[in-house]
Amino acid sequence: MKKKLNIGLVGYGFMGRTHSNAFVQAPRFFDVPYEPILKAVCARNADRVKAFASNWGYESIETDWRALVDRKDIDLVDIASPNDTHAEIAIAAASAGKMVTCEKPLARNAAESEKMVTAAESARVPNAVWYNYRRVPAVTLLKQLIDEGKLGRIFHYRAQFLQDWTISSDLPQGGEGLWRLDVAVAGSGVTGDLLAHCIDTAMWLNGTIDKVTAMTETFVKERKHQLTGKMEKVGIDDACAFLARFSNGSLATFESTRYARGHKALYTFEINGEHASIFWDLHDLHRLQYFDHRDEGRVRGWRNIHVSDGDQPYMKNWWVPGLQIGYEHSFVHQVADFLQGLADGKPAKPDFKDGLATDYVTDAVLKSAKSQKWENVKKA
Amino acid sequence: MKKKLNIGLVGYGFMGRTHSNAFVQAPRFFDVPYEPILKAVCARNADRVKAFASNWGYESIETDWRALVDRKDIDLVDIASPNDTHAEIAIAAASAGKMVTCEKPLARNAAESEKMVTAAESARVPNAVWYNYRRVPAVTLLKQLIDEGKLGRIFHYRAQFLQDWTISSDLPQGGEGLWRLDVAVAGSGVTGDLLAHCIDTAMWLNGTIDKVTAMTETFVKERKHQLTGKMEKVGIDDACAFLARFSNGSLATFESTRYARGHKALYTFEINGEHASIFWDLHDLHRLQYFDHRDEGRVRGWRNIHVSDGDQPYMKNWWVPGLQIGYEHSFVHQVADFLQGLADGKPAKPDFKDGLATDYVTDAVLKSAKSQKWENVKKA
Amino acid sequence: MKKKLNIGLVGYGFMGRTHSNAFVQAPRFFDVPYEPILKAVCARNADRVKAFASNWGYESIETDWRALVDRKDIDLVDIASPNDTHAEIAIAAASAGKMVTCEKPLARNAAESEKMVTAAESARVPNAVWYNYRRVPAVTLLKQLIDEGKLGRIFHYRAQFLQDWTISSDLPQGGEGLWRLDVAVAGSGVTGDLLAHCIDTAMWLNGTIDKVTAMTETFVKERKHQLTGKMEKVGIDDACAFLARFSNGSLATFESTRYARGHKALYTFEINGEHASIFWDLHDLHRLQYFDHRDEGRVRGWRNIHVSDGDQPYMKNWWVPGLQIGYEHSFVHQVADFLQGLADGKPAKPDFKDGLATDYVTDAVLKSAKSQKWENVKKA
Amino acid sequence: MKKKLNIGLVGYGFMGRTHSNAFVQAPRFFDVPYEPILKAVCARNADRVKAFASNWGYESIETDWRALVDRKDIDLVDIASPNDTHAEIAIAAASAGKMVTCEKPLARNAAESEKMVTAAESARVPNAVWYNYRRVPAVTLLKQLIDEGKLGRIFHYRAQFLQDWTISSDLPQGGEGLWRLDVAVAGSGVTGDLLAHCIDTAMWLNGTIDKVTAMTETFVKERKHQLTGKMEKVGIDDACAFLARFSNGSLATFESTRYARGHKALYTFEINGEHASIFWDLHDLHRLQYFDHRDEGRVRGWRNIHVSDGDQPYMKNWWVPGLQIGYEHSFVHQVADFLQGLADGKPAKPDFKDGLATDYVTDAVLKSAKSQKWENVKKA
Repeated sequence: MKKKLNIGLVGYGFMGRTHSNAFVQAPRFFDVPYEPILKAVCARNADRVKAFASNWGYESIETDWRALVDRKDIDLVDIASPNDTHAEIAIAAASAGKMVTCEKPLARNAAESEKMVTAAESARVPNAVWYNYRRVPAVTLLKQLIDEGKLGRIFHYRAQFLQDWTISSDLPQGGEGLWRLDVAVAGSGVTGDLLAHCIDTAMWLNGTIDKVTAMTETFVKERKHQLTGKMEKVGIDDACAFLARFSNGSLATFESTRYARGHKALYTFEINGEHASIFWDLHDLHRLQYFDHRDEGRVRGWRNIHVSDGDQPYMKNWWVPGLQIGYEHSFVHQVADFLQGLADGKPAKPDFKDGLATDYVTDAVLKSAKSQKWENVKKA
Repeated sequence: MKKKLNIGLVGYGFMGRTHSNAFVQAPRFFDVPYEPILKAVCARNADRVKAFASNWGYESIETDWRALVDRKDIDLVDIASPNDTHAEIAIAAASAGKMVTCEKPLARNAAESEKMVTAAESARVPNAVWYNYRRVPAVTLLKQLIDEGKLGRIFHYRAQFLQDWTISSDLPQGGEGLWRLDVAVAGSGVTGDLLAHCIDTAMWLNGTIDKVTAMTETFVKERKHQLTGKMEKVGIDDACAFLARFSNGSLATFESTRYARGHKALYTFEINGEHASIFWDLHDLHRLQYFDHRDEGRVRGWRNIHVSDGDQPYMKNWWVPGLQIGYEHSFVHQVADFLQGLADGKPAKPDFKDGLATDYVTDAVLKSAKSQKWENVKKA
Repeated sequence: MKKKLNIGLVGYGFMGRTHSNAFVQAPRFFDVPYEPILKAVCARNADRVKAFASNWGYESIETDWRALVDRKDIDLVDIASPNDTHAEIAIAAASAGKMVTCEKPLARNAAESEKMVTAAESARVPNAVWYNYRRVPAVTLLKQLIDEGKLGRIFHYRAQFLQDWTISSDLPQGGEGLWRLDVAVAGSGVTGDLLAHCIDTAMWLNGTIDKVTAMTETFVKERKHQLTGKMEKVGIDDACAFLARFSNGSLATFESTRYARGHKALYTFEINGEHASIFWDLHDLHRLQYFDHRDEGRVRGWRNIHVSDGDQPYMKNWWVPGLQIGYEHSFVHQVADFLQGLADGKPAKPDFKDGLATDYVTDAVLKSAKSQKWENVKKA
Repeated sequence: MKKKLNIGLVGYGFMGRTHSNAFVQAPRFFDVPYEPILKAVCARNADRVKAFASNWGYESIETDWRALVDRKDIDLVDIASPNDTHAEIAIAAASAGKMVTCEKPLARNAAESEKMVTAAESARVPNAVWYNYRRVPAVTLLKQLIDEGKLGRIFHYRAQFLQDWTISSDLPQGGEGLWRLDVAVAGSGVTGDLLAHCIDTAMWLNGTIDKVTAMTETFVKERKHQLTGKMEKVGIDDACAFLARFSNGSLATFESTRYARGHKALYTFEINGEHASIFWDLHDLHRLQYFDHRDEGRVRGWRNIHVSDGDQPYMKNWWVPGLQIGYEHSFVHQVADFLQGLADGKPAKPDFKDGLATDYVTDAVLKSAKSQKWENVKKA
């Protein structure tokens, strides 16, 4: 009989849905030692949170996250609300002895994140941040390849995360579905929202970053705020690019924007090593491109690997070779690994400290964009 | 309050899993008028069916499908067991007044399928066959494009379904996980298993097929049978290719094999019309290739469409633009449409009669492979 | 000092240009033992043939091919005129003791081709047919791979040649630039023009074809004839598809059409062997797709090989790795190999006899399309 | 009767071959007003220059470029020798009243290039620099699209030029075929050799660059020098990446390396505009990727354009739709345009001044890599 793990979710937006689905699906497809129970979901709008609870099978609702955190029957508080709420909720939850899982970025800036790490470590509660892309099977596979030394010395890392959904100047900022454009809520624009993903993956795969030089731009300077109804200055970065040097001596370029026509969520990265190179692309997330220089010269080429076989990470738990999985499965894998980690006493990564490490990079990036200088990155 | 629909599933293999997942996920992501209740699952091995029931949340088990069919608390019998069981179960279920949904192909041959159609139509029970690929969003989208006349007169249709999993002559035939290689159970090899998919899609998109000329081959002539332990003659077709003429005057080529190295489940098809052409590929099922000759000449090219936007079929119910879904979602969509069809009194397609139409084609194909002549296709 | 080889070209159309370019470029890029001298070009229109000669540096012109054949200073007669002229010119040239190179298809049908073979073999003159695609480096490379046994036993061959330039019914037939639509001149439609290419490559790579079953279609039944100005029945096949069995036991599908929107000259073929598969595409002719099942499972994938390295066929004579060559280079390679073959006493293939072998297949295909039966293929 | 233009070529390496081929092929495929005559080729090694002259049909040779420059029968001096010779030869040739065409980069640095511009402008001689990629048909086409306003306001430009040929530390530097690794001869590493191409295209398409911040790296610190036989410090940059701001407000990233496994000459660039985006890739140079947001939403996607039609730049002069051209054709186009420009009195771009503008950028890039600061770019 599996142990039950009572979940209390905060937030019912896009991320509330992906997390809920992950909690439900994980035990169906993975032989996990805990069964997540959807105990409660919390959000301010009672009608909408009721509808959400009904749809997903949450047993109860709350409209104040403090009430949720206080509940005895909640084992784990999962934070899927906007960035400006992360720190306060996470700290309270940890202090109340709850496990805490938090949507990325960990917080609006490293100062907030540091407090979250302190709270979680003081309380010694299991904690995690949802950098889900680590657990796309193709990405997990390439992590294995790197760890096995198949790439050899790494020379280059390049990543980008390109979108095109904010080009229209008619798009308002702030409020329902648009808080990512409101700097007070989000903390930053593409840097915290998109580059944070790129940085988390990069440091997981290639180690720490020493220093960066960056530029940012806000193409649309003013937008109507959805809540105030007024034209207000836009405070977020619409685009950000930076150069970086990793501690292992490799060079990197990172870029993100919401002004790249034709790209909806084009997160790609490539790593060039002495012996082999790899490339991955979120728009075809079930594929891995791999070039191995040790192949015979005449027939050397980039291998287009359809990551759907049983000997590839996570895939024996899904369908049969050739049948692809999608975006939400990366969250399911994160839940499966988290639950297994609980049982093993080996907490699944990334945890709050990893989230903080990423925030140190994004802070340095934003600082460099202002100072117009290379900035060193603080290590977590 | 949604009405409940009590499901009784027969079979717990690969298809038992996809169907169960679809019943569970459909009401989470689609606003359907019925809520499927996993009432019972049936298979001969009691231990394994218990484990399956526990994993998926089925309320009860049966080890004899006749008992399942007799149960008053079952509204719908879903058949996910091997092909040789389809007809008997479906006919009994329909006769018992149950709705019936049956995995494809409808049966081992058209003679069996005809009886199933008769039974379902006599009993006037809602019925469906799981040709799931119609509901991959990219495929549904191209159906819309065809229906809107965007392609104009159709000249060519070509489809293939290529796999490579039976090349080794050491692979046994028959029994657990391998009944698809046993002609007595499966009815045929790639023709019923894979080409049936191609034919269902083709007739849905391009109308009926008038005649065919075919060739089949069995590359490995003898295999050890898993159940008897003896080397036995292989009765299935390992590969099959045929030429066809559609009633609308277009020409077609179809091919399937399990001996195409490098292809796991490469179902592709292309349609060439007077004004536009389209191409789809199961290995990247979230993409549609579309060429429109009416685009300006200098910048005319195949459009690689990432089918993940809210204005594309089914996609507003999933994530956000750029984030892909996978294989199992096509089954979820089928359940959603089936439930909606129940409420609307407009049964969702494909139904048993459509399944029979496909079986008439596969029968003609297998007949032609023997007769070495063009054979006419019976119309359903 | 290189020996000179005096060329007499017949025809100044598309193929007259590719051949002329090949004669000129071959000695620049390949260390060939003969230097082709552009001695004379022949065509009926004196003004146009003069302009052509001036452009390409031909020393003289003729307006009657018989005069060209009679000239003492011509060593090799190269035939680039329409199909209906091939046999007569080639036979006369061979009888006059000239080497003969002839554009494909060798003739309008095998009966004509047989006479050409007889003439060339009786006269013991070097002869060749311009099936240029054998000498695209990617294609030559895959021939090497097959000959080395890298694919193992071959199960499947599939080829297609798709175009879209005759869809408009306003396009006239016959005459300048359009003789390929005039059955009296061309002999057949896509079968002789396009499938002949597919068949030549296929038999070179995979051996002889035993039997075929085919269908053809003429979508536009009448077109205005450019020379007569009248609407006339269209005699060519607009589209043709056939199934085939090779002598080595492999199965094949072939298809060609000029009614496939979006494809200009999409000649593709794929071969599936026991150990490996290969795919090639004329639209990206500098690339070879290669899948090797012996690669480690986790990182197995189709290799996209950019055929531009010095260890790949012909490429050390061109630029540097990464820089692609184009269509016309295949003709240059054919000239280089032909000239080397002359010096070595090992005539370069394909020769007239190979051309005849292909015509036997196209004849059987056209016969099957009429008889609606499988037809055996005569062997050359 | 065409006027003759007497060419005197300096250098017989890789670029000597591409230029010679271009001079020969241009009048065969384009109706140009001048016929280039291969009058003389010059290099220090008499035997090798003789062999080169014989192969390409140069009428005479020189072993001292000063003698070539002094010859009365030379109209145009074409410089295809290493970078350290460009300035001296070009200045002398211009001063002698010759037209001058010079391989890129114009010189080792802007200081040298400024003198070349001054010399050419003082002498009022036609001059050009061989940034050949402007005349790849796909690139020329996208220039047209930009000029027509199809992209609208430009937000982003990103370019990379990735190679992998110097990863081995056993590769010597300097001397025959390897002067690009010798900083004294080349001036810089990938910055002048590869990024210069990227920058020339970028400024042609997107206007001037205002400022840059860069990083460079030399991965292999010492290599044996081919001429001295000794291990010597490597002075070139093996890799370089920079961020840039264009005068039109768009942001850019540029990267080049010779340490990117799997890439031979992967020059790619992408431009994101308000309405449309474009992408091009040297490894498939005959293709253009184009995304137009104004296409209907459901069927919006990146168009993969096979640039081989008669209505696309330069292509009506080559073969037929679907048949691709290669690398060397870009040089042929440059000669054709240069000759036409001579007749029209509208000199073809890029000229020396354009070459200098690029050198101002590469100088600023290298300066920034040292200063670790943003550097302003001088305007030509």
